[in-house]
Amino acid sequence: MNNLNSLDNCINFLLTGAQHAVFQYMKKNLAQFGITPIQYGVLGCIWEFDMHNPKDIATHLGVENSTISGILERMENKGLIRRMIDSSDRRFIHIELTDVSRDLEIPVRTVVTEVDKVVLAKFGEKEIGMLKDMLRRINAEEL
Amino acid sequence: MNNLNSLDNCINFLLTGAQHAVFQYMKKNLAQFGITPIQYGVLGCIWEFDMHNPKDIATHLGVENSTISGILERMENKGLIRRMIDSSDRRFIHIELTDVSRDLEIPVRTVVTEVDKVVLAKFGEKEIGMLKDMLRRINAEEL
Repeated sequence: MNNLNSLDNCINFLLTGAQHAVFQYMKKNLAQFGITPIQYGVLGCIWEFDMHNPKDIATHLGVENSTISGILERMENKGLIRRMIDSSDRRFIHIELTDVSRDLEIPVRTVVTEVDKVVLAKFGEKEIGMLKDMLRRINAEEL
Repeated sequence: MNNLNSLDNCINFLLTGAQHAVFQYMKKNLAQFGITPIQYGVLGCIWEFDMHNPKDIATHLGVENSTISGILERMENKGLIRRMIDSSDRRFIHIELTDVSRDLEIPVRTVVTEVDKVVLAKFGEKEIGMLKDMLRRINAEEL
């Protein structure tokens, strides 16, 4: 069995462990704004990429279309977004920021930037670039 | 806002995307054995590390104690493990393999080894070592 990979060396196990640790840390740091990591993802899509369509946002975040509507509903209930429904075509939904979420951009992005620094504090700039590039390439794979 | 990190460059976003892709691929490949990635994790703890205590297994897998009992119950219902309860101390549970899960070790570990190869096919040996080492170090951080 020497050529069989060990559980502790398996890429799924390692990614799951690292993701869980970082996700929990991010969640803890975003709690002060009353938002979750996935809600930050939605806001990031609007703040940075001017996305207003639920489908585009879902695709960008790698979330199922069926999941995104629940996320957006909770965000609307919290006053973070407004969902504008086209009266002539009810399938067409346009997402807009509110004053609350507009004001959150700088403080939230400052905290997110800080989370990255803390998580990656042990690594050099070159290592960080390599890690992020590899994660991007794994993400882009047709598995 | 130039010194603020972008959503697409945030380590939580990148880890979550890569983890999701690899997890789904692992899940698809394990389905032929009727087991999920976390159930493989439990079996791996017994196969490789001779762990028999639910707490040790939960700690090794980074799973909450409250979650592990549900996982073990489903595995028992599938005939993958037996849970032996000490009659003098009902909190003490000893997990044992069954003939079914004993026979699964080589085929499952062969598929898991293959999953790693496919996911990491684009990378050189040195890059893979670096990636896994960095994920391990992130996982070990006190965040």
